[in-house]
Amino acid sequence: MYKIVLMRHGESTWNLDNRFTGWTDVDLTAKGEAEAKNAGKVLKDAGYTFDLAYTSVLKRAIRTLWLTMEEMDMVWLPVVNDWRLNERHYGALQGLDKSETAAKYGDDQVLAWRRSYDTPPPPLAPGDERTSAHDPRYAALPASKVPLTECLKDTVERVMPAWTEEIAPAIRAGRQILVSAHGNSLRALIKMLDGISDTDIVGLNIPNGQPLVYELDADLKPIRHYYLGDQQAIAAAAAAVANQGKAR
Amino acid sequence: MYKIVLMRHGESTWNLDNRFTGWTDVDLTAKGEAEAKNAGKVLKDAGYTFDLAYTSVLKRAIRTLWLTMEEMDMVWLPVVNDWRLNERHYGALQGLDKSETAAKYGDDQVLAWRRSYDTPPPPLAPGDERTSAHDPRYAALPASKVPLTECLKDTVERVMPAWTEEIAPAIRAGRQILVSAHGNSLRALIKMLDGISDTDIVGLNIPNGQPLVYELDADLKPIRHYYLGDQQAIAAAAAAVANQGKAR
Repeated sequence: MYKIVLMRHGESTWNLDNRFTGWTDVDLTAKGEAEAKNAGKVLKDAGYTFDLAYTSVLKRAIRTLWLTMEEMDMVWLPVVNDWRLNERHYGALQGLDKSETAAKYGDDQVLAWRRSYDTPPPPLAPGDERTSAHDPRYAALPASKVPLTECLKDTVERVMPAWTEEIAPAIRAGRQILVSAHGNSLRALIKMLDGISDTDIVGLNIPNGQPLVYELDADLKPIRHYYLGDQQAIAAAAAAVANQGKAR
Repeated sequence: MYKIVLMRHGESTWNLDNRFTGWTDVDLTAKGEAEAKNAGKVLKDAGYTFDLAYTSVLKRAIRTLWLTMEEMDMVWLPVVNDWRLNERHYGALQGLDKSETAAKYGDDQVLAWRRSYDTPPPPLAPGDERTSAHDPRYAALPASKVPLTECLKDTVERVMPAWTEEIAPAIRAGRQILVSAHGNSLRALIKMLDGISDTDIVGLNIPNGQPLVYELDADLKPIRHYYLGDQQAIAAAAAAVANQGKAR
């Protein structure tokens, strides 16, 4: 039997500001840092150990991982930064306030952009300063790979090769793996692992900074999964994520 | 022409306590953290950018690198942790106070252990709790590779393959590289780069947290080298390192 631990980054400044973030490289809040440290403590107390970590190229996921590693006294853990684990690109919504956007377009349109499987938000214009065109992190990629917007289906399609080509072979090789990523890149992994439908994946909310354990069989099919730590706090955190897109 | 930047970790708790550290995994002091952040600021202000970093598996070098990367807003930089870049193993001296050891054995013996090229300190006993026998960082290595003590010659012999097999090919491939390592693993690299004799290398003192630039020709032979930043502070820091082993 194999195990892998998935973790969404701690609260970011734009989670707090209630803004659409996507590929914008915002940092953790003090609360987000505390969530990351707590994740490390929970993992350590539960006896977890790792020999490989995967994360995105966005600092909220990277710093969550670092703080977790520090708390576990494992800063030497090899880390693979993979852009394919980035958050879903939110297109022209990146930087906009979620409540204002909901008030303007209505809860239904915002919920469609946030949670429909195949409706992408409006794309960034090619010359928009929010594009990744001159970012050294993506310089080695063909321009066609660097999105201007994504629906969840697009995110799933780029996350999948990271799983099949990188993470799954490492699990089969016996590596103990921690993944620090984002709400939608983790949703993509979980959709694939648990065979969740395009419709149902929309309702899955992943709380910030809570280690999620997947136990896998020899074919890497899930046997069971569970969050480590305080179950009440985890349920409250997931509910808070579900409410982020509502006008208030 | 190629460039590589070498950097010794910031002040560690045992630099401050004046203890022999070696492979003991001590953390940075507040001053060491400030030195690391300052190194990041110096590199950023001088317009440096990187696309690959190497460090050891010891937290004082890793955290120095992380703090530098944070200051440069480049936490996404890929990092290779290589045990061969670890500090020289100080054998049975690890944990002992340098001044007390000098008072007991004399400055000359301590200077020989610290700075002769081929006189290793007494080895750790195989059962000593200070050995790396059960450390997961070294679990994949054959026991013969994990030292119980080292002279600088031994350190040079294990650092060299990290250069020839990993770092040098990456430089030739055009990668912009930052190395965050230790007084003696950097001394090993510099001995090799500059062809310094076994005798003269003993007198080379590398200050904490100061970026050292090597410009290399097409054959990776040094054209020139220089520290970035405040030259007076750098000279004072190097002098402080030179005085660490004296009884006081």
